[in-house]
Amino acid sequence: MGKILLLNGPNLNLLGKREPGVYGNETLDRLEQDMKALGTSYETEVSCFQSNHEGELIDKLHLANEDGTQGIIFNPGAFTHYSYAIRDAVAGIQVPVIEVHISNVHAREEFRHTSVIAPAAMGQIVGLGFKGYELAFYALVDFEKGRG
Amino acid sequence: MGKILLLNGPNLNLLGKREPGVYGNETLDRLEQDMKALGTSYETEVSCFQSNHEGELIDKLHLANEDGTQGIIFNPGAFTHYSYAIRDAVAGIQVPVIEVHISNVHAREEFRHTSVIAPAAMGQIVGLGFKGYELAFYALVDFEKGRG
Amino acid sequence: MGKILLLNGPNLNLLGKREPGVYGNETLDRLEQDMKALGTSYETEVSCFQSNHEGELIDKLHLANEDGTQGIIFNPGAFTHYSYAIRDAVAGIQVPVIEVHISNVHAREEFRHTSVIAPAAMGQIVGLGFKGYELAFYALVDFEKGRG
Amino acid sequence: MGKILLLNGPNLNLLGKREPGVYGNETLDRLEQDMKALGTSYETEVSCFQSNHEGELIDKLHLANEDGTQGIIFNPGAFTHYSYAIRDAVAGIQVPVIEVHISNVHAREEFRHTSVIAPAAMGQIVGLGFKGYELAFYALVDFEKGRG
Amino acid sequence: MGKILLLNGPNLNLLGKREPGVYGNETLDRLEQDMKALGTSYETEVSCFQSNHEGELIDKLHLANEDGTQGIIFNPGAFTHYSYAIRDAVAGIQVPVIEVHISNVHAREEFRHTSVIAPAAMGQIVGLGFKGYELAFYALVDFEKGRG
Amino acid sequence: MGKILLLNGPNLNLLGKREPGVYGNETLDRLEQDMKALGTSYETEVSCFQSNHEGELIDKLHLANEDGTQGIIFNPGAFTHYSYAIRDAVAGIQVPVIEVHISNVHAREEFRHTSVIAPAAMGQIVGLGFKGYELAFYALVDFEKGRG
Amino acid sequence: MGKILLLNGPNLNLLGKREPGVYGNETLDRLEQDMKALGTSYETEVSCFQSNHEGELIDKLHLANEDGTQGIIFNPGAFTHYSYAIRDAVAGIQVPVIEVHISNVHAREEFRHTSVIAPAAMGQIVGLGFKGYELAFYALVDFEKGRG
Amino acid sequence: MGKILLLNGPNLNLLGKREPGVYGNETLDRLEQDMKALGTSYETEVSCFQSNHEGELIDKLHLANEDGTQGIIFNPGAFTHYSYAIRDAVAGIQVPVIEVHISNVHAREEFRHTSVIAPAAMGQIVGLGFKGYELAFYALVDFEKGRG
Amino acid sequence: MGKILLLNGPNLNLLGKREPGVYGNETLDRLEQDMKALGTSYETEVSCFQSNHEGELIDKLHLANEDGTQGIIFNPGAFTHYSYAIRDAVAGIQVPVIEVHISNVHAREEFRHTSVIAPAAMGQIVGLGFKGYELAFYALVDFEKGRG
Amino acid sequence: MGKILLLNGPNLNLLGKREPGVYGNETLDRLEQDMKALGTSYETEVSCFQSNHEGELIDKLHLANEDGTQGIIFNPGAFTHYSYAIRDAVAGIQVPVIEVHISNVHAREEFRHTSVIAPAAMGQIVGLGFKGYELAFYALVDFEKGRG
Amino acid sequence: MGKILLLNGPNLNLLGKREPGVYGNETLDRLEQDMKALGTSYETEVSCFQSNHEGELIDKLHLANEDGTQGIIFNPGAFTHYSYAIRDAVAGIQVPVIEVHISNVHAREEFRHTSVIAPAAMGQIVGLGFKGYELAFYALVDFEKGRG
Amino acid sequence: MGKILLLNGPNLNLLGKREPGVYGNETLDRLEQDMKALGTSYETEVSCFQSNHEGELIDKLHLANEDGTQGIIFNPGAFTHYSYAIRDAVAGIQVPVIEVHISNVHAREEFRHTSVIAPAAMGQIVGLGFKGYELAFYALVDFEKGRG
Repeated sequence: MGKILLLNGPNLNLLGKREPGVYGNETLDRLEQDMKALGTSYETEVSCFQSNHEGELIDKLHLANEDGTQGIIFNPGAFTHYSYAIRDAVAGIQVPVIEVHISNVHAREEFRHTSVIAPAAMGQIVGLGFKGYELAFYALVDFEKGRG
Repeated sequence: MGKILLLNGPNLNLLGKREPGVYGNETLDRLEQDMKALGTSYETEVSCFQSNHEGELIDKLHLANEDGTQGIIFNPGAFTHYSYAIRDAVAGIQVPVIEVHISNVHAREEFRHTSVIAPAAMGQIVGLGFKGYELAFYALVDFEKGRG
Repeated sequence: MGKILLLNGPNLNLLGKREPGVYGNETLDRLEQDMKALGTSYETEVSCFQSNHEGELIDKLHLANEDGTQGIIFNPGAFTHYSYAIRDAVAGIQVPVIEVHISNVHAREEFRHTSVIAPAAMGQIVGLGFKGYELAFYALVDFEKGRG
Repeated sequence: MGKILLLNGPNLNLLGKREPGVYGNETLDRLEQDMKALGTSYETEVSCFQSNHEGELIDKLHLANEDGTQGIIFNPGAFTHYSYAIRDAVAGIQVPVIEVHISNVHAREEFRHTSVIAPAAMGQIVGLGFKGYELAFYALVDFEKGRG
Repeated sequence: MGKILLLNGPNLNLLGKREPGVYGNETLDRLEQDMKALGTSYETEVSCFQSNHEGELIDKLHLANEDGTQGIIFNPGAFTHYSYAIRDAVAGIQVPVIEVHISNVHAREEFRHTSVIAPAAMGQIVGLGFKGYELAFYALVDFEKGRG
Repeated sequence: MGKILLLNGPNLNLLGKREPGVYGNETLDRLEQDMKALGTSYETEVSCFQSNHEGELIDKLHLANEDGTQGIIFNPGAFTHYSYAIRDAVAGIQVPVIEVHISNVHAREEFRHTSVIAPAAMGQIVGLGFKGYELAFYALVDFEKGRG
Repeated sequence: MGKILLLNGPNLNLLGKREPGVYGNETLDRLEQDMKALGTSYETEVSCFQSNHEGELIDKLHLANEDGTQGIIFNPGAFTHYSYAIRDAVAGIQVPVIEVHISNVHAREEFRHTSVIAPAAMGQIVGLGFKGYELAFYALVDFEKGRG
Repeated sequence: MGKILLLNGPNLNLLGKREPGVYGNETLDRLEQDMKALGTSYETEVSCFQSNHEGELIDKLHLANEDGTQGIIFNPGAFTHYSYAIRDAVAGIQVPVIEVHISNVHAREEFRHTSVIAPAAMGQIVGLGFKGYELAFYALVDFEKGRG
Repeated sequence: MGKILLLNGPNLNLLGKREPGVYGNETLDRLEQDMKALGTSYETEVSCFQSNHEGELIDKLHLANEDGTQGIIFNPGAFTHYSYAIRDAVAGIQVPVIEVHISNVHAREEFRHTSVIAPAAMGQIVGLGFKGYELAFYALVDFEKGRG
Repeated sequence: MGKILLLNGPNLNLLGKREPGVYGNETLDRLEQDMKALGTSYETEVSCFQSNHEGELIDKLHLANEDGTQGIIFNPGAFTHYSYAIRDAVAGIQVPVIEVHISNVHAREEFRHTSVIAPAAMGQIVGLGFKGYELAFYALVDFEKGRG
Repeated sequence: MGKILLLNGPNLNLLGKREPGVYGNETLDRLEQDMKALGTSYETEVSCFQSNHEGELIDKLHLANEDGTQGIIFNPGAFTHYSYAIRDAVAGIQVPVIEVHISNVHAREEFRHTSVIAPAAMGQIVGLGFKGYELAFYALVDFEKGRG
Repeated sequence: MGKILLLNGPNLNLLGKREPGVYGNETLDRLEQDMKALGTSYETEVSCFQSNHEGELIDKLHLANEDGTQGIIFNPGAFTHYSYAIRDAVAGIQVPVIEVHISNVHAREEFRHTSVIAPAAMGQIVGLGFKGYELAFYALVDFEKGRG
C-alpha cells in the first residue's frame, strides 16, 4: 500500500476563513478529508500535516525520507518565495515533491511570481484550486507506478 | 459532448527527437493520439494543433473562442517567455486555458523561469512530463462540470 | 490623391469583443469604415490591414515603402513591447509611421509602459480611443502637406 | 462656450531659441497665438500659462478644477520625468489632461522615455511638433462633446 | 472592556542589552509593564507576547483573530524585511495591526528600508522609541471607538 | 509655551475633495483647526502652513530653525519620493521633524514605498489618517519634555 | 557534395536599400549569388532563404535537420535579441549553426548587445560585413572536414 | 568688463550653520564677498544669487542668457541629483556653466554620486571646498579669453 | 576551562546522507564527536546544537551570551542567505561568531553567494569541508587568548 | 609586404594545458607557428605577442599604431570583460582590430557574455576555436586590400 | 620648496594623436612642460609620470607617500572606472590626490560616469581640458599652505 | 618536503602603515617571517611574493603550477573584486588556492562583498586577521596529506 504526504505551509489552516475570493470557501479540514478518501480509493494512505513553522515543515520533509513516504504534495504557502532552507530540504531528500498553489500566483503580487523551492521539486501545479492537490496525487501515484 | 483543444507551440513538433534528456522519448504524434483517446473515454472531442508560428497560435486561440471549445491545454514552448501577443490573446478570449510545460522550467536557465502568459491563464502545470497534459485535461473537464 | 495605410497588430481583430472596459465596444470593422470615410473626405485613400502575424506586419511595412504610401497609422498591439524586428522595419522604410494605442498603456501593467518601436516612429498617440487613429491621420496629412 | 487651458512647463519659454534642431524655430508666443485662434474657430476660449516653477503648475491645475476649465493640454517639460507632485495634481482634479511632447522623447536620452505623469493623464501625444497641441485640442473638444 | 495584543518579534527580548545606542536602555519587561498600565487606564486589557520564532508569531496572530482581540501592536523585528508568511497572516485576519519600529529604520542599512508586512497592516510608526508603541495603542483605541 | 509647526506639502490643500477613498472627507482647514485646538489644550502654539512649492517648504523649514519652533509635523506629499532638497533642509536644521502620511503608502503604487526624506527625519507615522498628525504632536511634545 | 544553408532573418531583404551607412550598398540578391558561387568553387551546394516570419525560420531550421544540410550560416536579424523560440530550434537540431551579423552590433544600441540565440549556436561572427558570411562558410566547411 | 554669475541652490543659504563637518564654517555671505572681490581683481563683475526654489534658478539661468553673462559658477545643491528641468535649462542656454560641489559627493550617500546636470555643463569641480568656486572662476575667465 | 558552541542550521542533520558530492560522506554526529575531542585536547568544552528552526538558533545564540560561551562556530545553512533575524541575533550578542560553510558557496547557485549574516560575524570560512569547523575553533581559541 | 599582429591576452600561454575541454589541446606555440605560416603564404608578416599584463598589451597596441601594422588579431582573454583601458587603446589607434575568442563565450558564465572592448573593435569572431584566428586573418587581409 | 606629482594613466601618452575632438590637440609632453613651468613659478617641483600599467601607477602612489610629495594631480584614464586597486592605493597614502579628467566624462558613455577612485580622493575636476590640471595644482598648493 | 606559496596582491606591502584600524599594525615583512617559521615547523618551505601588478600575480600563479608548489595562500587585495584574469589563472592551474582576507570584507563597502576569484578557488577565509593566513596553511597541509 502506497504512502503519500499532504503538506501545507503557513496560513493554510485559515482556508475557508481567509480571503475566500482568493482561496475559496472550503476548509483545510475538508481538503484533508477529501484527499484521504481519494487515497483510500487508490489503496494509498494519505497522511496530512500543516504548520506555520518553517522548521516543522523541514523536519517533516526529513522524516518522510525515512518512513517510506513515496511522494509529497506540498503547498509551502508564502515560504515559497524565500525559504531556501525548505528548498534545501526538498533537494536533500529522495522522495519526489510536487509544489501546489491554490490560486494563480502569477496573476497576483510580483513577489508571488518567484518560487525558490520549485527548482528542487519535481513539478508544480498552480491556480487550479483544490483540484491541484488531487492532480498532484495522480501524478505521484503514476510516477510511483512508473518506478515500481 | 465536450470539446477540448490541445495546442502546442514552437519546437514541440520535435518531441522525441529534441534533447530527449529534457523532453523524453515520446513523439508529438503519440501525445496527440493519447490525448484523443483520453478524450474519447470522457466523451470529449480533443482536437490538436501545433505550430512554430506565433500568429497561427493566436489565430487558433481566437477561433477556439468562436467554435464551442470548452477548454485549452496549451504548451506555448519558448513563446512562454516573451510573447505578450499570445498573453493578450489568452486574456481576450473566454475559454479557460491551462499552461503546460513538460520539463521543470524552474530548474533550467533563468529566462525559462518567467511566463508572461501565465497571468492570463487559469493555471499552470510544470515539470510532470506528458502526464501534465493529462492532468490539465482532468482540470478542464472538472471545471466545465462545475460551470455546467 | 494621397495614400494612407491603417495597420493593426495582434488581437485588434477582437475589438468590440475583447475587454470592452479597456478597448470600448466598437469593432475593427467599424474603425476601418470610419477611417476610410475620413480619408475620402480628405481625398486620401485609406487602406486597412490587420494581422496577428509579426511577419505579415513587417512584409506590409516593406510593401508600403514601395507602393506610394505616404503615411502609416500603426497600432502594433502587444508587439509594441518586444518586437525589435518591427522596429527595424519601421526604421528601414522612408514612410512616416505614427504609433497609436487605444488605451492609456501607461496606466496599465508595467510591461505596457515600454515601446521598443516608438524610437523608430515619427510620433505616438496614446489613450485617446478610436479618436487617436483620426488624429494620427490629420498629423500625417499635415506632414505630407508640409513636405509637398 | 468651452474653456481649454494650454499649460507649458519648464524651459518651454525658450521655444524657438533652444536647440531648434530638436524643438523647431517657432516661439511659445506663436504657439499660444495659434492655439487661441484655433479655439476661437471652435467657440472655445483657450487660456495659456507657462512656468518654470513646479508649484505654479500645480496651483494652476488646481485652479482649473474650480474655474470651469473643460480640458487641459499640458506639456510638463522635464517635470514629466520626476514630478510625482504634478502627477498627484493631475490625478486629484476632474478635468481631463492630455500630455503633449513636441519631440519624440522615445528617440532621445533614456531618462526621457519615462513619464511619471502619464498614468494620471487621459492620454499622451508625442513627437508631432506643434501639431501635437492642435490634436490634443481636437481630442478634448471631442471628449467634451461626448460627455455634453 | 477592550483587548489589545502587544506582539514583539525576534531579538526584542534583548531590549536594554542589545545595542543600546540604537534601541535605548529600557527592557522588554519594562515596556510590557508600561503598556499594561496604559491599558488599565483606558479600561483595555493589554496582553503581551514575544517570540524569536516566526511560526509562533503567526500562530499568535491567528489566535488573536479568534479570541476577541481588537487591535495588535506589532514590532516584527527583522522579520519585517522578509517574512511574507507573517504578511499573509496579517492580511488573513480581521484584527487591525499597527507595525511599530523603535529605531528609524530608514536611517540604517538598506535592507531595513523595506517592510514586506506594511502593505497588509493598517499603518506604521517608525523611529519614535517606546513612545511608538504608546501611540499605536491610542490609534487602535481610537479606531475601535470609530467602529464601536 | 511650546511652538509646533504643521507643514503640509503639495496637493494636501485638496483634502476632502481629492480621492476621498484614499484621503478621507475632511478638509485641510478642518485638520488645521483641530490641530490648533489640540495645541491649545497642551499650551502649545500650533502654526500651520501648506504649499505646493518645494522652495516654500524649504524656506519654511529654515525659518522654523530660527523662530523657536520645537517640533515639525510634516506631510511632504509626493515630494516624499524625490525631493532630496527637502531632505537636506530637514537634515540641516536642529528642530525634530516627524513625517506623516495619511494613507498607507506601502499599500499603494511602488514609487510611494520610498521616502528620501525619512532618513533625515526623527520618525515616521503612516496610514493612520488624520490621527497620525495628532500622534506626531504627542510624540513631539513628549520629546520636548524629555529634553526640557 | 556538401550542403550549406544561408538563412537570413527579418528586414535583410531590404539590404542595399535600408540604412546603407550601417549595412552597406549591396543587395541580398547579390549576397546570395556570391555565396552560391563560393559554394560551387568548394563543391558545396549553398541554398538560400530569407524570411520576416519567425515561424518560417524555425520551420526551415527543422527542415535542414532532415535534408542532409551540413551547416547553417544564420543572420537572425532583430530576432537575435528576443526569439527564444529560434534559440530552441537551433538547440534542437544537430546541424551546426554560425550566427552572423553584418554590422558591429556591440557598437550600436544597448538592446543589440545581447544575443539570446548565440548560446545555442556553434559560434558568432560580428561586424565584418558580407565577408562575415564568407568566413562562416569556411568555418563550416572546415568543421565538416574535421568530422568527415 | 566681464560678467560672471555665482548661482547657489537649495540649503546653501545655511552655509556655516549646517553640518559644518561637511560644509565648513564659512557663510554664504562670506563666499559671495570673496568671489566679488576676486572678480574685481580680474575686472569682472561677479553677481550672486541663491535660491531654494528650482523655478527661480531656472529663471535666473534663462536671464543670464540674455544679459551678457559670460559664465556661470553653479552649485545646484540637492537639485543636482534629480532636477532634469535645471539640466534642460543649462542645455538650453549658450553661457558656459561649471558645476561646483563643496564636499566630495562621491564619498557620501549613494544618491549624491549622480549628477543629472553635469552632462549639460561644461565641467565639474568637486570636493575642494570654497576653493572650488574660485577655480571655476579661473576656468571661466580663461575660457572667455580663449574665445575672446 | 573554555567553552565553545558548535551551532549547525537547517538540513545539516542530513550530513552524510544529503548530496554527498557536495557535502561529503561524514555525518553530523561524527563532526560533533570530532569537535568535542578537539575541544578536550585544548581544555575547552565544545557543546553542540543543530536545528532546522530559525527561532531555536536565535534562542541558542541569546543563551550563549548568558552562559559563559566564549566563541561560536556557526554554519547557518540556507538561513545564511535570508535570515536577517539571525543576523540581528549575532549582532546583538557579545560572543564572537565565525560563520562556516562546508562547500564553496561561491561556486554554486547565485543565491548562495550572499550572506546576510556575515557582516555581523567576526569572520567566515568557506569551502574547506569539515576542516573549516576545526580552523574556526583554532581562531576562536586564539582570539580568546588574545583577549584573556 | 603586409604586417599583421597576433595579440593574445592573459592565460592564453596556458593553451593546451588549461581546461582542454574548453580550449582544446593545441598550444599557443602551435597557434603562432600556424599563423606565421599562413601569413607567409599570403606574403604577410605575422608577428606574435602574448602577455598576462594589461599594460603590456596596451603598449603593444600603441606600438602597432606606429610601426606599420595593418591589422590586429586580438584575443584579450578575461580582460575582454572589464578592461576599459584596453578598449580606449583600441579606440585610440587607427589599426583595425578583430576580437577573437576560442570558446563560445555566450554559452559560458554570465560575466563572459559582455565585451567592453568589442564596441571599439572592427568586429568579433567567437566560438570557432583556432579557426577563428585564421578567419580574422582573412578578414584583415581582405579589408586591407579593399583600402589598398 | 614644494613637491607635486603629475600622474597620468593609460592612453594619455596618446594625447594630441588620439581622438582630438575629445582630448584636444596638445601632447602629453606639452602638458608636462607647462605644468613644470607652472611649478617653477610657484617654487614647487612638479615631477611627471605616465604609465599604461596599473601596477606602476600603484607603485608610484606608494612611493609618493615616502618621498615628501605634497600633492598628486592624477588622471587615472580608464582605470577610473574599475581599478579598486588604485582606489585602495589612494586611500592607503596620506598625500592628497585630486582626480582630473580632460573631457566631460558625464557627457560620454554610461560607464564613464562612475569613478571608483573618487571616493578616496580629495576632489575631482572634470571637463575643463588641460586647464583642469592647472586648477588642481592651485588647489594642492593652497591646501598645503592651509596645513603649512 | 612540501612547498607552499604565500601570495599577496596590491597595497598589501603597505600593511602596518595603511589604515591600521582596518588592517592592524603588523607589517608584511612580519607576516612573511611568521609564515616561513610556521612552514619550517611543518617541514614545509613557504615562499613569499607580493605585487601591485595583476600580470605579475598571474605569472606567479602559472609558475607555481610548474615548480612543485602544493598549495597557494592568496590575498588578492582589491583585485578580488574585478580581476577575471586572475580568476582564470586560478582556474587554469592544478594547485589548490585558498583566498584570504584580513578584514571582514562583508562588513565594509558594498563592492568588497563580491569575489570574482572565489568560485575558482578551493575556499576562502575572511576577517580573521593574520590568523587567516595561518589557518589557510593548515588547510593546505591537511589537504595535501589527504591526497598524499
